[in-house]
Amino acid sequence: MLLIASDAHRAHDPADEVEAGHRRPMHETPDRVDRIRAALDATGTHRWLDPDDHGRAPIDAVHDPAMVDFLETAWAEWTTAAGVDDAVPDVFLHPGLRAGMGPARAPATPLGRLGFWCFETTTPIVAGTYGAARAAVDLALTATDRVLVGERFAYALCRPPGHHAGRSVFGGYCFFNNAAIAAQHAVARGIDRVAVLDVDYHHGNGTQQIFYERADVFYASLHGDPDRAYPFFTGHGDETGAGAGAGTNLNLPLGVGCDDGDFVATLDRALEAIDGFGAEIVIVSLGLDPYRDDPICDLAVTTDGFRACGARVAALDRPTIVVQEGGYATDMLGSNVAAWLAGLETASGQR
Amino acid sequence: MLLIASDAHRAHDPADEVEAGHRRPMHETPDRVDRIRAALDATGTHRWLDPDDHGRAPIDAVHDPAMVDFLETAWAEWTTAAGVDDAVPDVFLHPGLRAGMGPARAPATPLGRLGFWCFETTTPIVAGTYGAARAAVDLALTATDRVLVGERFAYALCRPPGHHAGRSVFGGYCFFNNAAIAAQHAVARGIDRVAVLDVDYHHGNGTQQIFYERADVFYASLHGDPDRAYPFFTGHGDETGAGAGAGTNLNLPLGVGCDDGDFVATLDRALEAIDGFGAEIVIVSLGLDPYRDDPICDLAVTTDGFRACGARVAALDRPTIVVQEGGYATDMLGSNVAAWLAGLETASGQR
Repeated sequence: MLLIASDAHRAHDPADEVEAGHRRPMHETPDRVDRIRAALDATGTHRWLDPDDHGRAPIDAVHDPAMVDFLETAWAEWTTAAGVDDAVPDVFLHPGLRAGMGPARAPATPLGRLGFWCFETTTPIVAGTYGAARAAVDLALTATDRVLVGERFAYALCRPPGHHAGRSVFGGYCFFNNAAIAAQHAVARGIDRVAVLDVDYHHGNGTQQIFYERADVFYASLHGDPDRAYPFFTGHGDETGAGAGAGTNLNLPLGVGCDDGDFVATLDRALEAIDGFGAEIVIVSLGLDPYRDDPICDLAVTTDGFRACGARVAALDRPTIVVQEGGYATDMLGSNVAAWLAGLETASGQR
Repeated sequence: MLLIASDAHRAHDPADEVEAGHRRPMHETPDRVDRIRAALDATGTHRWLDPDDHGRAPIDAVHDPAMVDFLETAWAEWTTAAGVDDAVPDVFLHPGLRAGMGPARAPATPLGRLGFWCFETTTPIVAGTYGAARAAVDLALTATDRVLVGERFAYALCRPPGHHAGRSVFGGYCFFNNAAIAAQHAVARGIDRVAVLDVDYHHGNGTQQIFYERADVFYASLHGDPDRAYPFFTGHGDETGAGAGAGTNLNLPLGVGCDDGDFVATLDRALEAIDGFGAEIVIVSLGLDPYRDDPICDLAVTTDGFRACGARVAALDRPTIVVQEGGYATDMLGSNVAAWLAGLETASGQR
């Protein structure tokens, strides 16, 4: 399989995240990429490709350009105003603040601007964040380009991940929505119907929000029920799209301890819907955090289960771009990605 | 002057607040009340009164009862789910999460519920928070009752403060909006026109939001310009009210280093507007954080300046309830409150 990766992600390496007001070691680390690359190299069956630079335009096509501007300059503003530490917000643009008052404007102060664009405290910005986030987008776009010119599958080893970033908000370890930008890129290149299949443990609130009113991009997600699972405020089964996008959003919330059988059966529901939508290509937001030993999640999927999932996606028989999202059981992360991709290409008979 | 206070606030005593992802000692401490009481006792001119219990109904008249329910049970839920630490949110209901999707519902999980109702990380909930917040409301309501039956002035030594709490959101050291609940109580008792005058350094986003579309409550605020000052997302001069409340909201943002002369001149503009509105009673949200040595603010008002402010409010010649809000230069907090109240009663000729 064709794999797209680069070392640019290493520049985004915050030491800590802030969980319920306490600093803890960051779960989303550069080591995750090393583990995945090592496991995929060990298979001996993959080809690595460097990404192409796509510039900022594909990002601005999906995100508010003012948010992209903010992320480009946030670190320089922060170090000037607040010292040399990581940039973590403490006050947030909650809708209760301006209920009845109309939209807010971004303040001048870096701390206020952080909370204007960000929704949580586990996504620190450091010196290398913007460059790494830009590079992750290029991986997803390069994978998309290759599939658009005939490659059956391509895998983009994106880091930082993307699916929590919405049009005008970032967080959840995510800055730019790699999968959504890839989907929009495919539409811009003439694909009429794109499906994003999100199998990360966490609901891809950003992808859902970006395409919620769009008829040309179908979003289907398996995830921990938002009643208990981060990011809490999206991912319910009754969020089915709106306006032109009515019926193009499918949320499949999962209970605690969901095992391989339940997970694959639920995946089949998503695949059936994607098939019914008539997707011409599929973009998979691949999280391995449904894994039974993931330190921050509560499902029970095994490595064999991930292999089965890849095989089911292959049976959909659509050109497929796989974009890396989460997965924090670092020891098994590489094996789990390798199993998922092996399921995908073995079932399709392709190497 | 009639002063209303109690010791119930002591039960709300978090050790830390979380500023930009770092734990720092809490600025909003029980010691603040001790300093104020000692300074007022030292004047020998004041009478202390215990509060009356007003129950929950006046709170539910201003805040979403579901938020009051949450605050009542938050600590018990938190200690069951997350341990015995203080309750600090890390993920927040940012409007970007559900843009185009309609309102959110509260999740079941305590961490998610915290960020559903709270907008920031410097307002920890501890075991005694709810009781203290309830008691602070009773102080403001008791002061209001006494003024409604003929007292010229009354001062409620509220802690925790209130003016950052909106109908469906809390934060900024605030849980229930003591001043707004007092204003609504006055309206319920037959006062047709109430003014809330907010002289805290920070914009009273909660009070503004609660009355933004109301014709019967005028809100005027002097505060650090939101372009640089917490809470950043409200407090602009062009926020003038909406619907039936059009024209009943007056924001007067202040520049860095604003001194006594500028501050009093700006206060005069607020008082002129309140006079023009025809307020029958005035509720003052009294923050002493415009003080020149306040550790978290950037204005330059002096103790003499606060005395002058009290005198200007007395000249408005309306029955006046003074509700304590912020002020973090603890050494001078008592003297500054005493000076403000001395200005008020000396100018009116009342003891």
